[in-house]
Amino acid sequence: MLIVKKFGGTSVANKDRIFNVAGRIREEYKKGNEVVVVLSAMGKQTDALLDMAKEINPSASKRELDMLLVTGEQISVALMAMALDTLGVPAVSLNAYQVAMHTTSVYGNARLKRIDPERIQNELESKRVVIITGFQGVNKFDDYTTLGRGGSDTTAVALAAALHADACEIYTDVDGVFTADPRIVSKARKLDEITYDEMLELASLGAGVLHNRSVEMAKKFGVQLVVRSSLNNSEGTIVKEVVKMEKMLVSGVACDKNTARVSVVGLEDQPGVAFKLFNLLANHNINVDIILQSIGRDGTKDISFTIKEDDLEEAVNILESHREGSLKCQKIDTEREVAKVSIVGAGMMANSGIASKMFEALYDVGINIKMISTSEIRVTVLIDETQVEKAMNAVHDKFLFAM
Amino acid sequence: MLIVKKFGGTSVANKDRIFNVAGRIREEYKKGNEVVVVLSAMGKQTDALLDMAKEINPSASKRELDMLLVTGEQISVALMAMALDTLGVPAVSLNAYQVAMHTTSVYGNARLKRIDPERIQNELESKRVVIITGFQGVNKFDDYTTLGRGGSDTTAVALAAALHADACEIYTDVDGVFTADPRIVSKARKLDEITYDEMLELASLGAGVLHNRSVEMAKKFGVQLVVRSSLNNSEGTIVKEVVKMEKMLVSGVACDKNTARVSVVGLEDQPGVAFKLFNLLANHNINVDIILQSIGRDGTKDISFTIKEDDLEEAVNILESHREGSLKCQKIDTEREVAKVSIVGAGMMANSGIASKMFEALYDVGINIKMISTSEIRVTVLIDETQVEKAMNAVHDKFLFAM
Repeated sequence: MLIVKKFGGTSVANKDRIFNVAGRIREEYKKGNEVVVVLSAMGKQTDALLDMAKEINPSASKRELDMLLVTGEQISVALMAMALDTLGVPAVSLNAYQVAMHTTSVYGNARLKRIDPERIQNELESKRVVIITGFQGVNKFDDYTTLGRGGSDTTAVALAAALHADACEIYTDVDGVFTADPRIVSKARKLDEITYDEMLELASLGAGVLHNRSVEMAKKFGVQLVVRSSLNNSEGTIVKEVVKMEKMLVSGVACDKNTARVSVVGLEDQPGVAFKLFNLLANHNINVDIILQSIGRDGTKDISFTIKEDDLEEAVNILESHREGSLKCQKIDTEREVAKVSIVGAGMMANSGIASKMFEALYDVGINIKMISTSEIRVTVLIDETQVEKAMNAVHDKFLFAM
Repeated sequence: MLIVKKFGGTSVANKDRIFNVAGRIREEYKKGNEVVVVLSAMGKQTDALLDMAKEINPSASKRELDMLLVTGEQISVALMAMALDTLGVPAVSLNAYQVAMHTTSVYGNARLKRIDPERIQNELESKRVVIITGFQGVNKFDDYTTLGRGGSDTTAVALAAALHADACEIYTDVDGVFTADPRIVSKARKLDEITYDEMLELASLGAGVLHNRSVEMAKKFGVQLVVRSSLNNSEGTIVKEVVKMEKMLVSGVACDKNTARVSVVGLEDQPGVAFKLFNLLANHNINVDIILQSIGRDGTKDISFTIKEDDLEEAVNILESHREGSLKCQKIDTEREVAKVSIVGAGMMANSGIASKMFEALYDVGINIKMISTSEIRVTVLIDETQVEKAMNAVHDKFLFAM
């Protein structure tokens, strides 16, 4: 068996944790398996490097930032190879250059394009564990790039695909994917299995275990993922295309507090106003999430939408500066203290009553719904931010313990 | 003009020093020159990485150590490119991979074989300052290597040769090459010029400004070096093939306290004993410096030699373990508290009285000479370590202020 294992920064933050990970790798190696390991930079190393850069140049070029940041993972992989050697396991560390991890040209947020597996295969044939820098690549200019948030997960999935690995294990500091954040919902349970699509919805809703891009890539190449803890031997959660039939309708409840609502009131009720509005925001790279448009009345209509709270100030500035020009509306109204609560489940596709059951749960505890959005496997409501905890527990109880 | 500038670790140890160096680079760039900069790792960064490695694996493989250590210079060059950007100077950092700095395969002590100047030339044509990692290379296995002590100087000289640079400036924390260590000889003066050969003798004698390998390479490729301070604008010392005719006979006085004497007493006076003795030591990588053999008497002879003090214990163990076997000698006598004092000067080749003038200077202050060794441009004596300061000042006075 060829197994790809990815460990994050907290798993290699110091000597003891490095040896903990090295011990797990040795276990796998002793079973006779081929092992490829992907590592992030140690603990707060990336932040420390960013701080150094900021001191020198607060608006440093992304090309030079990537040149700086990639040293973090290189330190991790070299130390891990040394730790394995201490434990009597032959190992070799490789960086993005040595693996030939080709990416697009965009510094700071590159996408993996192609991996040359030759060097890795040669090392595996020589019975070595291969330790590879996550998060980084090399572009067509022969420059280092980084893959952005969650980049090491993507590296692991891409390697698993390129090497036709039998398993791809993502180690974190939690036991797997949960039905809800256990810090908010005390009855939250670990899921044994979840589909790629459910995982994608949960990740985009701030569940934060796996990054979207890695799940998308796993889905595209059919790489079965296992999310598990680096601190214990529990089985973790398997992420795959189709899960067992007897599974529940709803896999999880998620929330996202980094949300704000904007209402554009009194727009002219004529073709093209929605286009003008959202085109303005798109031109400034502001992503809009839920959109709700009122029925036209008295020749005007209102459009409300949610955006990231971080983008609120910029969005309002843009809209205000066009209010009397191209936009022509009466006023712009905003609300910052709102949050999204969502239920996600592949099972809800075939079941019509899911959404109303969620609304009922919220009604039972007296929570007012401000906006609603649905996809095939997700129902999202916008509520008051102060009521998130109550809402999540109510919804969780309704679905996940009603079986 | 194309100018290569090399700055050591202390010159880039913190933000202020990085900007000090960046300021000097900007000055050169503003004159319209093409500038290539070679940097070492920041301050104690290399030591910090070595400490981390030692904690994980006290006998870590050199391959992995090099993988770890090369991150140090990569951090320096990225930060320097950011600092130059802050000062409005376009710059790009490159590591050994990007420059294609080919070396031999030996990890930890590789030799540069070939540099592909294409990428550097392209960047220079785009009017960028090019910042390059010193001390490192890539071998035929596509692995990182390091060049050993003084490696960044060698990188700078090799780049100057490959790029046909007009000048190669080595910046240090002293004003240049001195007639003696100013901490020992208060009257020591800075030299304006010195030959490659003199510099080589001084470097091997512990003057420590330039590493031998970089001087050898400069001599081989005819790269004229300038050793100067990164802290002021003084002119420094030029290192080249031939210096002005009116120069003095002796360029400098150097000492080396890391020396011990070993005497092998009562060896059989027959062919092959010297070979057996020194072959034993060579097999254990112990370098022998001065050798002195007594005239045979009563069928026996004595051989004395100097080695590095660090090697003394091992050398004695080796010799003792063979004393009654292949070596056959009466006893092994050692002396640890000895030091070498040398005078170096291309001018002494044509002058016969130099050595005796040195011995006279030592006699005048009552210093006993234990051993003597000479080369074409050097005279070295072994004396008591406690007398080094007195000896150096006496010899310095005799030669360097007698003009």
